Amino acid sequence: MENERLKKQLEFCREIDKEKFIGRQTYKSDAQTKENDAEHAWHMAVMTVLLSEYANEKIDVLKTVTMLLIHDIVEIDAGDTYAYDEEGKKTQREREVKAADRIFGILPDDQRDNFRNLWEEFEKGETPEAKFAHTMDNFQPAMLNDLTEGKSWVEKGVHLSQILERNKNTAAGSKEIWDYAYKNIFEKNVEAGKIKKDN
Amino acid sequence: MENERLKKQLEFCREIDKEKFIGRQTYKSDAQTKENDAEHAWHMAVMTVLLSEYANEKIDVLKTVTMLLIHDIVEIDAGDTYAYDEEGKKTQREREVKAADRIFGILPDDQRDNFRNLWEEFEKGETPEAKFAHTMDNFQPAMLNDLTEGKSWVEKGVHLSQILERNKNTAAGSKEIWDYAYKNIFEKNVEAGKIKKDN
Ligand SMILES: [Ca+2]
Repeated sequence: MENERLKKQLEFCREIDKEKFIGRQTYKSDAQTKENDAEHAWHMAVMTVLLSEYANEKIDVLKTVTMLLIHDIVEIDAGDTYAYDEEGKKTQREREVKAADRIFGILPDDQRDNFRNLWEEFEKGETPEAKFAHTMDNFQPAMLNDLTEGKSWVEKGVHLSQILERNKNTAAGSKEIWDYAYKNIFEKNVEAGKIKKDN
Repeated sequence: MENERLKKQLEFCREIDKEKFIGRQTYKSDAQTKENDAEHAWHMAVMTVLLSEYANEKIDVLKTVTMLLIHDIVEIDAGDTYAYDEEGKKTQREREVKAADRIFGILPDDQRDNFRNLWEEFEKGETPEAKFAHTMDNFQPAMLNDLTEGKSWVEKGVHLSQILERNKNTAAGSKEIWDYAYKNIFEKNVEAGKIKKDN
């Protein structure tokens, strides 16, 4: 029976390898290739370990790291929905719930429930951990877009208003990181003409 | 001053993006493309959350996950040394220490020391966390090599003795995972002719 449990766990471990093929819109530091969900999750996990001191409310770091490590696994079935793709966002929830059922369902029941609950907690964005996870999920691509001289923003013609809308809860996880992002990333890239003003 | 601290932390966060370009010898599940260090670290971090129950000794999961998330960062400067590259392994320690000095040195002193110590702890492999981290570092690529029908083993002409030598401490982290790997991965792939017998 013990072996049945390990089998399910390893089936899940093999299944999630597919996350390495889910592409995102963010350029990596070479400004040529775009990152995938696994690279994105790794990057945010390290950042969470280093930056948790800036969370507005005290966070459980392991819980937040785990949440970030697994929150995009649903995209193996549902695909990545670009932050500014308004059409795709309409069916996103339905596609992702179906994916969560299938993929987390591979795990033994206790771990299925744990990962499923962590994912739902992230989606709701109400706990200190989920709020900080969203801060990371917004800040990490902003940091890379800035590092690559706004290439992704320019290609997509992104407006400041879209960024502010997407980031409307970034400060809820960390006021300090939001302040940094606003001044040193968004304002700077508006001035540099990489992000469009709305006027 | 606070801002100086955040600046250093973010400089490090940008620097480690380069880990996404450090290639490994392990094929991903498509059996066509090889994983990089960031994908490898992400995969092992999730696996550690799920499989920590099989550690021989009780482990601190956050510590083990953090160790795995950062243990390959030195390869940004030192490059990946393939497990069976005996020449490269001679200069590996020297190259990696220099890399650790530079890259962890970007961080504020307390976090520099924390990451540096975690990396050294991994390298020594003596604590329960370091032993389990090595179990993951050996098991994850074995799992992928098996999933891709031994492609990497066949291409490199790997012998069972090399695998056993590399895995001589895998059971020290988890007897159960080693037993699984031995029977369901190594023995199976010797029988299938993917791993060479030594005789
Ligand atoms: Ca490794």
